[in-house]
Amino acid sequence: MPLTSALPAHFQPVALDKAYRLMNHGPTVLVSASHAGVANVMAAAWAGVLDFMPPKLTVVLDKATATRALIEASGQFALQLPTRAMATLTTGVGTDSAHTVPDKLHKHGVQLFSVPGSGVPLVQGCVGWLLCRLISEPHNQQTYDLFIGEVTAAWADDRVFSQGRWHFEQADNALRTIHHVAGGSYLVSGDTIQG
Amino acid sequence: MPLTSALPAHFQPVALDKAYRLMNHGPTVLVSASHAGVANVMAAAWAGVLDFMPPKLTVVLDKATATRALIEASGQFALQLPTRAMATLTTGVGTDSAHTVPDKLHKHGVQLFSVPGSGVPLVQGCVGWLLCRLISEPHNQQTYDLFIGEVTAAWADDRVFSQGRWHFEQADNALRTIHHVAGGSYLVSGDTIQG
Repeated sequence: MPLTSALPAHFQPVALDKAYRLMNHGPTVLVSASHAGVANVMAAAWAGVLDFMPPKLTVVLDKATATRALIEASGQFALQLPTRAMATLTTGVGTDSAHTVPDKLHKHGVQLFSVPGSGVPLVQGCVGWLLCRLISEPHNQQTYDLFIGEVTAAWADDRVFSQGRWHFEQADNALRTIHHVAGGSYLVSGDTIQG
Repeated sequence: MPLTSALPAHFQPVALDKAYRLMNHGPTVLVSASHAGVANVMAAAWAGVLDFMPPKLTVVLDKATATRALIEASGQFALQLPTRAMATLTTGVGTDSAHTVPDKLHKHGVQLFSVPGSGVPLVQGCVGWLLCRLISEPHNQQTYDLFIGEVTAAWADDRVFSQGRWHFEQADNALRTIHHVAGGSYLVSGDTIQG
């Protein structure tokens, strides 16, 4: 699948010291990587924040996944936040493996792009993107399938994230992030409250 | 603060192989522990699932927190899921430290209980509770403030969680879980969708 260099509309940089805010609310993510001309995308509910600055993230990647091998080979990956409108796509790329469904990205309508200076594939339609450098921790990777990345750049859709905050209430509900419960069922990010 | 052995209404066991489902959607949690007669509770947005069975969780605990020291000393802790109704309590116990506010639990209206056979304090009013045994990983704890726990027992409020699934739409909105964004602002778990 060819990468395009056409950036999504509303794709705006997020300052690194605010990048953790994209993930603070625990959304399900799409994990993307490429190596030697092969790109892949999987879904992961088990991803989260590890540190503020420099921002670090964790993500759990099963040994059976094709994307994990691309990350181990390239030392780079991206986490990105799919929307309510992308729930079926998310379940699709989280269920099919490229090992058995080589055209899984095409099958599930995944469109990729990349930013200047990076070969890591990013997924169109998401509302947050975090480009990461793998911090190699062989014990964690082998024993727990746990991967740590340092965020080197981040972007968000400025219709729903600006000035370091989500503003879902001001935009189309289709742009809200999703949180996997089980079996393709998701809780959509809901009301904003102050506590 | 004395523990009571009176269990909350609607407090029902969750099978260990379904315990990860309590955390799969990335809620903000309260972290509780006790040692040598001292109990404490803090808030953590950076907690998540590490494995299905036996279920394992991760949580990031800053070195400055009093609760971390109790976990390191006792080797046990609990993660539990506060509700929309508990957002102010959650911000309170996440902001004040027992180091400087010794009566923080009383100040923020935290009521504790425990289950037979365990001395780990649990927080009344939550909708999910996961009792954990610390899996000692000194490198992760020291370098990343990252703690791993194996879930040894779990419970949920059966008004909102049953048969391994959340059912928020059938209950009072005040019982929905919350996801911290920043500065005491939370996204409440919203609609359930199938993707």
